[in-house]
Amino acid sequence: MSLTAPQPVDLLIEARWVVPVEPHAVVLENHAVAVNDGRIVALLPIAQARAAYAPRERVELSEHALIPGLVNAHTHNPMTLLRGLADDLPLMVWLQQHIWPAEAKVMGPEFVRDGVELAVAEMLRGGTTCTNENYFFPDVIGATYRRMGFRAVVGLPVIDFPTAWAKSQDEYFARAGEVHDSFLGDALVSTAFAPHAPYTVSDESFERIRVLADQLDIPVHLHTHETAHEVEEEKKKSGLRPFQRLQKLGLVNDRLIAVHMTQLTDGEIAACAEAGVSVVHCPESNLKLASGFCPAEKLRQAGVNVAIGTDGCASNNDLDMFGEMRTAALLAKAVAGDAAAFDAASALRAATLNGAKAIGLEAKIGSIEIGKQADFAAVRLSDLETQPLFHVASQLVYSTGRHQVSDVWIAGVRKLAARELIGVDTAAILTKARAWRERIAAG
Amino acid sequence: MSLTAPQPVDLLIEARWVVPVEPHAVVLENHAVAVNDGRIVALLPIAQARAAYAPRERVELSEHALIPGLVNAHTHNPMTLLRGLADDLPLMVWLQQHIWPAEAKVMGPEFVRDGVELAVAEMLRGGTTCTNENYFFPDVIGATYRRMGFRAVVGLPVIDFPTAWAKSQDEYFARAGEVHDSFLGDALVSTAFAPHAPYTVSDESFERIRVLADQLDIPVHLHTHETAHEVEEEKKKSGLRPFQRLQKLGLVNDRLIAVHMTQLTDGEIAACAEAGVSVVHCPESNLKLASGFCPAEKLRQAGVNVAIGTDGCASNNDLDMFGEMRTAALLAKAVAGDAAAFDAASALRAATLNGAKAIGLEAKIGSIEIGKQADFAAVRLSDLETQPLFHVASQLVYSTGRHQVSDVWIAGVRKLAARELIGVDTAAILTKARAWRERIAAG
Repeated sequence: MSLTAPQPVDLLIEARWVVPVEPHAVVLENHAVAVNDGRIVALLPIAQARAAYAPRERVELSEHALIPGLVNAHTHNPMTLLRGLADDLPLMVWLQQHIWPAEAKVMGPEFVRDGVELAVAEMLRGGTTCTNENYFFPDVIGATYRRMGFRAVVGLPVIDFPTAWAKSQDEYFARAGEVHDSFLGDALVSTAFAPHAPYTVSDESFERIRVLADQLDIPVHLHTHETAHEVEEEKKKSGLRPFQRLQKLGLVNDRLIAVHMTQLTDGEIAACAEAGVSVVHCPESNLKLASGFCPAEKLRQAGVNVAIGTDGCASNNDLDMFGEMRTAALLAKAVAGDAAAFDAASALRAATLNGAKAIGLEAKIGSIEIGKQADFAAVRLSDLETQPLFHVASQLVYSTGRHQVSDVWIAGVRKLAARELIGVDTAAILTKARAWRERIAAG
Repeated sequence: MSLTAPQPVDLLIEARWVVPVEPHAVVLENHAVAVNDGRIVALLPIAQARAAYAPRERVELSEHALIPGLVNAHTHNPMTLLRGLADDLPLMVWLQQHIWPAEAKVMGPEFVRDGVELAVAEMLRGGTTCTNENYFFPDVIGATYRRMGFRAVVGLPVIDFPTAWAKSQDEYFARAGEVHDSFLGDALVSTAFAPHAPYTVSDESFERIRVLADQLDIPVHLHTHETAHEVEEEKKKSGLRPFQRLQKLGLVNDRLIAVHMTQLTDGEIAACAEAGVSVVHCPESNLKLASGFCPAEKLRQAGVNVAIGTDGCASNNDLDMFGEMRTAALLAKAVAGDAAAFDAASALRAATLNGAKAIGLEAKIGSIEIGKQADFAAVRLSDLETQPLFHVASQLVYSTGRHQVSDVWIAGVRKLAARELIGVDTAAILTKARAWRERIAAG
């Protein structure tokens, strides 16, 4: 072994299994991860790690798998306060008679802040360490993630009608620029353009977004091809499918985060692969709103970067990325007609590294590799619900409940320790959630 | 209030919410259930209950919903020991190269007993109180359920080839009769015929089953129309679809528990409704094995009794009825193309009363009604994952994790108390599960 003195590091996590995600489908037994200054500095067998490092903190996870923190690639987290408000309704009734009136009543900085706080607590307890956010008041949203030490890409909304956030196109763009600048250089929070969808954003706005996204070097995050109806309506209006219109506008490129994508031709799938588009698959939202079936396996086979998102809690109704991974893996098989489709390792990759890639953070997060940020979730696999254990990736995807997440770190900072949230005032969050409930239900 | 002295009862459970399931879609606030001799004797507001009853035990569930114990209407519980053994494989590779060889190596009374013990522990921790079992060695299976105080209908296997359980048709029927008789009058365990499937059971065996099921007054539990391939093969062999063949054999009646049913014509759906057939929908198994999509909402709309099952842990990979309810409710919407399909109250009913009806126990279990057995699950809804709370049924189906089940009773006997299993040696079960894993993995 080494003759040099053990190297001091901030943290050494010793795990029964480490699933680094990259390389693909590998499970390392009895490995340790050394962390310093919030970054991964080594990944090696436990015995070697003990000889090589003198950690200020050592965490032993003898019955656990250590995985990269999960990346929820599409959320509207303030809407966590609307969880279960209106279920089992036709899409337009749901939206027009329930969600929009409720939002109109509560929309503002307090609602957004309190919803994000509840969401952060829920995400941390479920092993999620990064979210791709899409809602109004991104200034408040970003400030809340920053204050809570949670990693997020915050969408800068653009939509062709006035809202509580902005009254005109110029105001949307002005505020987008301000919010973007305010998070420049932030360790955890960055931004993306978030034009709502092709049916609510004009060509002119899309053209401004294309130019600005290039200048600012940020992703473009939008809902599209969510339903067959949406595709038909666009064809009536512009003569093009939404994807064709985005192509014409120069938006089909590797900045594009296309969410939902339940309606796709083979040509569109090939175009996504060629252009480096990321598709965010939200299987539970698509099922719950009867939107359609995203061809997740076809996309994956074509080489498209497929990430996974929960969508907002008004249409899911949770932020459970373990559940979403599982639904994605199960549903893809039935849609592809192939029980071998979207295997467990691919589902885990979609929920981690592919999510990171979609939001432009693949150099920083999404896998347990030296030099990357120390964003991890530890999953206890000794519960009887995950025994016997033949294959770690299978167990994580097909049997594990999110409550088996024991510990979570973001940039090397422990956020959950043996199921206890650290630095999060759960009681206050719940009190506020109940107060919002009273206000919303009174309407 | 009453001037008479409070009536002594064994147990009074006071809950923030009681969801009786019958009447449909009702949620009672601050209600209590009085239990005596294992049966429900009253359901009334807490204040009235306190005046009327002098319970030997009182349980307060101030943040919980009390629901009927969940009924898992299709399982192969010994296979819990094969959880995650072989995933993400084409159906025939999975079955022929993994599951059958593994079963051949381990099949016998010990495997069956140890698998059922693990399954009972998992089911209790997830709020399930009754299972419709289908596997070899029903004598051992039934004895294990009886010993553990778990309610079960145990399938009496019939299949047209020799197995470790029986070598000939006559032996299958002889052993079926013996096992049936041995559980006559048992408080918790009863039996059903379990012919494997139309493609593995001859007309002659089906004819014997029809006569005997009538004589013994028991259900007939079989897999059918699981895949399009199965339907095609039967048509090649007999010129009939499997369902037509069952009709011809006189088996399409209210004893029939038809599991899977992903391939159905409108005529077959109408015939199921008319004949009183119960369909057990196993959505996660159907997805995972790419079997097809059961038209669950069409069946429900037609008046068919639709129950829910997890199937075995080799194709799911859990016995999580909360997860299965949720998948059923979500998937039915996308399959029906209607976001209002298979609403939360209907999903909960499918997972309780409809399951009870399928297995012939609707007079005894499946709802919280006076005179029925005291089979309950208490679900803690105060966790931040189920807050804010607008609608109890929505929350139970769309947001609740099975780990939020705090307490479980079967026939008035507490089986789970504040997440602790009572009378179950969890450590021994886990030790045995790990020993089976070593034996199976060594092969």
